Amino acid sequence: MESKNGEGVRNKQDIFRDFIANGAFPTESDMQVTESTIELTRAIAEGSSGVLVKNLYLSCDPYMRNCMGELPDSAQSYIASFQPGSPIPGYGVARVLESGHPNFKKGDLVWGITGWEEYSLITAPESCFKIEHTDVPLSYYTGLLGMPGMTAYAGFFEVSSPKKGETVFISAAAGAVGQLVGQFAKLLGCYVVGSAGSREKVDLLKNKLGFDDAFNYKEEQDLDAVLKRCFPEGIDVYFDNVGGRMLDAVLPNMKLHGRITVCGMISQYSLEQPEGMYNLMNILLKRVRMQGFLVFDYYHLYPKFLETVLPQIKEGKIVYVEDIVEGLENGPAALVGVFYGRNVGKQVVVVSRE
Amino acid sequence: MESKNGEGVRNKQDIFRDFIANGAFPTESDMQVTESTIELTRAIAEGSSGVLVKNLYLSCDPYMRNCMGELPDSAQSYIASFQPGSPIPGYGVARVLESGHPNFKKGDLVWGITGWEEYSLITAPESCFKIEHTDVPLSYYTGLLGMPGMTAYAGFFEVSSPKKGETVFISAAAGAVGQLVGQFAKLLGCYVVGSAGSREKVDLLKNKLGFDDAFNYKEEQDLDAVLKRCFPEGIDVYFDNVGGRMLDAVLPNMKLHGRITVCGMISQYSLEQPEGMYNLMNILLKRVRMQGFLVFDYYHLYPKFLETVLPQIKEGKIVYVEDIVEGLENGPAALVGVFYGRNVGKQVVVVSRE
Repeated sequence: MESKNGEGVRNKQDIFRDFIANGAFPTESDMQVTESTIELTRAIAEGSSGVLVKNLYLSCDPYMRNCMGELPDSAQSYIASFQPGSPIPGYGVARVLESGHPNFKKGDLVWGITGWEEYSLITAPESCFKIEHTDVPLSYYTGLLGMPGMTAYAGFFEVSSPKKGETVFISAAAGAVGQLVGQFAKLLGCYVVGSAGSREKVDLLKNKLGFDDAFNYKEEQDLDAVLKRCFPEGIDVYFDNVGGRMLDAVLPNMKLHGRITVCGMISQYSLEQPEGMYNLMNILLKRVRMQGFLVFDYYHLYPKFLETVLPQIKEGKIVYVEDIVEGLENGPAALVGVFYGRNVGKQVVVVSRE
Repeated sequence: MESKNGEGVRNKQDIFRDFIANGAFPTESDMQVTESTIELTRAIAEGSSGVLVKNLYLSCDPYMRNCMGELPDSAQSYIASFQPGSPIPGYGVARVLESGHPNFKKGDLVWGITGWEEYSLITAPESCFKIEHTDVPLSYYTGLLGMPGMTAYAGFFEVSSPKKGETVFISAAAGAVGQLVGQFAKLLGCYVVGSAGSREKVDLLKNKLGFDDAFNYKEEQDLDAVLKRCFPEGIDVYFDNVGGRMLDAVLPNMKLHGRITVCGMISQYSLEQPEGMYNLMNILLKRVRMQGFLVFDYYHLYPKFLETVLPQIKEGKIVYVEDIVEGLENGPAALVGVFYGRNVGKQVVVVSRE
């Protein structure tokens, strides 16, 4: 699929059609698989610092639901909305074909924000990371070694102030971030329990990811009761990926001086009105610290993170579960699936294995 | 009113009658003014380390509402329930009449937890502070220089991470804690706005306590609108004394990396069910830190606090508004008034001016 001078090559794309309503779950029809063409040799304008890449792996992440709605001004600092009619922007792993930027050269592998298409012109490549270590699966740079991995690392070690012997509860624990937080917590010597939305995931948590205990929140009528059963002495650290009624159930089960790290609130993203929270008084009663964070504020720690995690991967101390689908054709279904919890482990879309 | 050997003296008392229901506001009839007798010379048992005091000033504090109900186990770490049939326990200023404890001697002035009565036997005097500086009004040790003052100091400087030039919002701003937080924030160079429940209090905030702005929340239909008017760029620090719908209105008005310091939630103490909170997502969107705290964890800073605040009082840089009633007879009404916001400034009950 080489392009000759002035001759376009096919560029299959997953197009974001239009903003979806506040209270709606995304569906496949909110996206459209199309084909356009791209002139690879002319993609980078003279003097531009853009980088032309061939996309290899794309990442399906919960935050993307927020980009599918028209975001209020107050949220624009968090993340920008998708552009209707354009390919979905998102994290991915890609090979540099041409570079106008001094940090990157032809042939480099990078991860960062790219587009859901075969070829992308990355106009702000400063935010991409060059991949130096290729003795691990490349797809890991969408998860374990990419944004979700950094999220787990920063959220746990930098935000949660964890100590050996403490009790840690993680929601959406089989997801891209949760499975790592649990393993970090186990390596530190914590007692770790996770919640997830299917028996298969619970089994994964207990039998593959080394969690001390796990439960299927969909099978539990009384979240307070199951938390009391799992944590008779209370929770020191709650790593929250879901918000809503799980967060509300956790609050009365926090220990004195506990910490709630708010990484995500996926249960609330597709609701017209957020669920009411009634147990905030526990913030006061238990002197709890609740801290929202975004990985963007911690990317300066990425080298330190790699230094910590790469050896742990190679020694088998950290494992990572991926849910991989093949082809941009299957991208929309994979992304939608994340909001229904259909994925088991980190959801990845393969664009090309080169 | 000296006692001779074996002869009792009158000990007027404000007795807590019985636990009040979850959803009820306290009323005067929940307490009873009675007279008992006490044998002062025999009050301290042989070998006991108790301290017999004559109470001078008593403090009416919002936390006391929580002690009037039967507290759930989970809250016992916060504060103990009152004992039905016994004098109300609470902070006060007192003169030592007899001491079985090496830290205190006859004639000392102390502040700490005592009883709502003329004479009290303090059985755990370790938690009392000896008053060394008497060139300020003694009643200040129930407020500005006592528990509420330490609360304001620790909550603002130790918990809120305030910086010069930041915007600070304080609810219940004319209360015992709020008025001081506002003055601390002004001295640091912050832009400070307070809310209170009457025009008189708003006037006090603007014209006596040096707040940049203030509003009467009872006159505002739309808390979000008034917060946007007062803080067009958002709030860096919210010092929360009230919880509930004010806290929920503040959340979308927080700035990136803002801090919410939860000192109290007085609006919720007398509700059968807490109000629902719907804007927690902002904790994530704005990377907000929300931290509950209790002054007990910061009393080791009391000497440093005095060192800071005493000169500021003497130089007139910090002022303090008290609402003083005379006599234990008026104690129940004064305490009840705090839960209706009737007090203007720190509510103090004078037992005796010696």
